[in-house]
Amino acid sequence: MGGDFGPSVVLEGAVRAFRELGISSIVVGVEAELLACLKQFGIESVPSGTAGITVQNATEVITMDDAPSAAIRGKVDSSIRVAFELVRKGEGSAVVSPGNTGAVMAAGLFVSGTLPGIARPAIATLIPRVGDREPTILLDSGANTDCHAHQLVQFALMGTFYAKAINLYEHPRVAILSNGTESSKGNDITRAAYAALTELPVINFVGYIEGRGLGKDIADVVVCDGFIGNITLKTMEGAVELILDSLRYYTSQSLFRWKLGMMLAKPMFKLLFKEKLDPSTYGGAPLLGLRDVAIICHGSSNARAIMNAIRVAKKSVDGDLVEKLGGALTHLDEVGESFNEALFDRIGKRFEKKKGVIK
Amino acid sequence: MGGDFGPSVVLEGAVRAFRELGISSIVVGVEAELLACLKQFGIESVPSGTAGITVQNATEVITMDDAPSAAIRGKVDSSIRVAFELVRKGEGSAVVSPGNTGAVMAAGLFVSGTLPGIARPAIATLIPRVGDREPTILLDSGANTDCHAHQLVQFALMGTFYAKAINLYEHPRVAILSNGTESSKGNDITRAAYAALTELPVINFVGYIEGRGLGKDIADVVVCDGFIGNITLKTMEGAVELILDSLRYYTSQSLFRWKLGMMLAKPMFKLLFKEKLDPSTYGGAPLLGLRDVAIICHGSSNARAIMNAIRVAKKSVDGDLVEKLGGALTHLDEVGESFNEALFDRIGKRFEKKKGVIK
Repeated sequence: MGGDFGPSVVLEGAVRAFRELGISSIVVGVEAELLACLKQFGIESVPSGTAGITVQNATEVITMDDAPSAAIRGKVDSSIRVAFELVRKGEGSAVVSPGNTGAVMAAGLFVSGTLPGIARPAIATLIPRVGDREPTILLDSGANTDCHAHQLVQFALMGTFYAKAINLYEHPRVAILSNGTESSKGNDITRAAYAALTELPVINFVGYIEGRGLGKDIADVVVCDGFIGNITLKTMEGAVELILDSLRYYTSQSLFRWKLGMMLAKPMFKLLFKEKLDPSTYGGAPLLGLRDVAIICHGSSNARAIMNAIRVAKKSVDGDLVEKLGGALTHLDEVGESFNEALFDRIGKRFEKKKGVIK
Repeated sequence: MGGDFGPSVVLEGAVRAFRELGISSIVVGVEAELLACLKQFGIESVPSGTAGITVQNATEVITMDDAPSAAIRGKVDSSIRVAFELVRKGEGSAVVSPGNTGAVMAAGLFVSGTLPGIARPAIATLIPRVGDREPTILLDSGANTDCHAHQLVQFALMGTFYAKAINLYEHPRVAILSNGTESSKGNDITRAAYAALTELPVINFVGYIEGRGLGKDIADVVVCDGFIGNITLKTMEGAVELILDSLRYYTSQSLFRWKLGMMLAKPMFKLLFKEKLDPSTYGGAPLLGLRDVAIICHGSSNARAIMNAIRVAKKSVDGDLVEKLGGALTHLDEVGESFNEALFDRIGKRFEKKKGVIK
């Protein structure tokens, strides 16, 4: 029921995922509305467990204006909570939602719970890089607005194991997003996380990275709090839109020569802006750290983005993402390399002493 | 002596500002080094007060690794401190520096001091918008890494009066950079600032703005803490570079048709990437809130950026920026509309009460 454009766009994405990729979905929400929507696509609801689209009734809706955790506790029959419960019961394999991120997060925490050693899950988004290079993984890109230093370290661990689990990087270079590359830069939280990450041998920590380094070949996993991550991602999208709009503006005002040039180069721009830089190509980003697969989509997702998010969900389930991530974190705990409170306290105290000098 | 490329680039900028714009500069730093550099441009140092380039000796250098405020107190004869003192003495009119931002900030606080009602100065950067639209003013874009809510409100005041002083906007729309537009979004600091800004009639507050809204026609002044502002600006630059590099990559790999198209459209790309989106076009950003004009340049500034920063400094001095800003803040104080601690406390308490609901 979530997303900026209501259920019909989400349903269209699910229908496309079934028709084009052969992935079945249970769509959860106000039954009458969903059934009416589904009819428009010439499809009927099938019983759960059958190939196709199954409509599952959920009478309550959490809006963008709702306070997430209160809503999840209060609205027992909300679509997002019911969706997580279906996955817990084994009727579904993964949750996909373009709704209120806070509500997805709250429902995930409430119904699924977190993996060992993880305080709060984080959204991991793929950022495109130049040419054939694999993307950079940015986390948290929106789940946690105010983060402690130990959360950044947990994000670094999850990012590292996630990169391995999806076969993107074997030994990913991890960096903290900051306002400069020198170790004296950063704010209180990033400096504490910096000190802690240099002590964790399991992480290939390369220091701070600046905003302009995200698309470059500097780090493979970049961690930051979700407030900054959300602003960073949307700023990138805004910059891409600014360039596209400016090119349109100049072309519309311009000489025949420019128009001809842009016409000839159009397929290249399509490749760049519609494939590489369009957020709907990746479709959705996993909420890492939960005991179930959950994929968060942009509120403004179109049907293509929803379909691709469903594809990402299927891939994560098939690749045993949760088991691999959980296994790595548990193993870490066993060999005593996990990022526990004691280690953080020790580093924190040393950091406090050093801080007098840094400041 | 600052900047990533050392004094010769800065000197070249000063020489170009003199030759192309007729603006004289005092260059402050290690005398022997600067004189040798100057010789390369076929220029000799002139006495202070004479048209041309004056070399002023300062034996100490603050590097990117120095702890700013300690360095300013300790290094009495550092170039940046001497520069501010020359302006205080009336020998110079404005400070321009591509050096360590923290050091410029510390020297400004130590030597110049702040305007009435302003706790800490902020860097105000202009962000380009599509077409003929005037730029968005973003502050703080790097001076203060950890900010309190009342600082965001002071940034909103300074941004409003700055927009008026430079004749950019008469009634600028002010927004807070956040992770969503709904008033329930944001972190603890932005939510407190949000509550306070709705109470200040002198500010045309329009609420939250997302990263993707920065280049759009939504707000004219955008406030955030300097850590986020720095990351946001550099992320925009990085996105522009990513697109440029990707276009180069595709063109190099591509069909004749794309190459021809890009060749024909090249002047348009130059206009967009070399004029509109190149940070060196603006050159420098004012450090607002000091009792003197100070212009901060990117550490990676080239000579053109330094020249343009000197141009911005001259324009700010000619336009009585400090007097106008100081006058507006003082007047605000007199009519009881200033953002004082009492008001903040009052709003803060109400906000605390409301927070239970928001959360």
